[in-house]
Amino acid sequence: MAHVSLITLGVEDLDRALRFYAGLGWEPSAASVEDTIVFVRGGALVLALFPRADLAAEAGLDPAAPSGATMALAMNVASQDEVEATVEAAVRAGGWIARPGRRADWGGYSAYVTDPDGHLWEIAHNPAFPLRADGSITLPDEA
Amino acid sequence: MAHVSLITLGVEDLDRALRFYAGLGWEPSAASVEDTIVFVRGGALVLALFPRADLAAEAGLDPAAPSGATMALAMNVASQDEVEATVEAAVRAGGWIARPGRRADWGGYSAYVTDPDGHLWEIAHNPAFPLRADGSITLPDEA
Repeated sequence: MAHVSLITLGVEDLDRALRFYAGLGWEPSAASVEDTIVFVRGGALVLALFPRADLAAEAGLDPAAPSGATMALAMNVASQDEVEATVEAAVRAGGWIARPGRRADWGGYSAYVTDPDGHLWEIAHNPAFPLRADGSITLPDEA
Repeated sequence: MAHVSLITLGVEDLDRALRFYAGLGWEPSAASVEDTIVFVRGGALVLALFPRADLAAEAGLDPAAPSGATMALAMNVASQDEVEATVEAAVRAGGWIARPGRRADWGGYSAYVTDPDGHLWEIAHNPAFPLRADGSITLPDEA
């Protein structure tokens, strides 16, 4: 089922971004990794606050390009095979591969694709973030 | 409760964008308005495919600025007063008003704010899109 599990926002300053989202009622998760990535939960969605340069590197974007407000929507799926099948479906439907699938240092497997307008999607299998029936993810401290 | 109700993706060609998202399993909603906006539902999230220039005009962005892949996250709330209270909370937390609150031609009330990194949020009250307890919205053809 099509869904959005998580939205990664590229930020210049993790603390500043966390203060903003905490001020709007988003709850920092203990699954966050200090000085690396901050997860905040709101309803069925998780926002990941992640340094913009790290997101560009991870997603295969040109770090020298004018970045605008870089973000990536993420669709978490159940397996590495499902990542590849979703990437193939995206390409058949008119999208582009930004960064091919590969094993991730966080223990899963992911790829980045763009839609025909350049909107960035991460297609990910993360065994540490179990999927619920509606496509939302469970963070490790919520299990 | 903090949440994301809807994500608006600025696109150059509505039909091309719809083909892409339909190819990934998103379901076009009968609430879409021909040649104007396409809503597609996936799980608890709704994507709105909307011409990029219209999104820039709506959100108070400079249409001449390099736009990148313009998108806006939306938090739908229960009333006009709650829109204004959320905008005030965003400004207190370090965000900026992109376009102040005003009545919308679609029958509700909305404002656009950015987080400290420029990520765009629409804060909206739309009586035609009733809110569920988890912050997700019901499209008119789903009521």
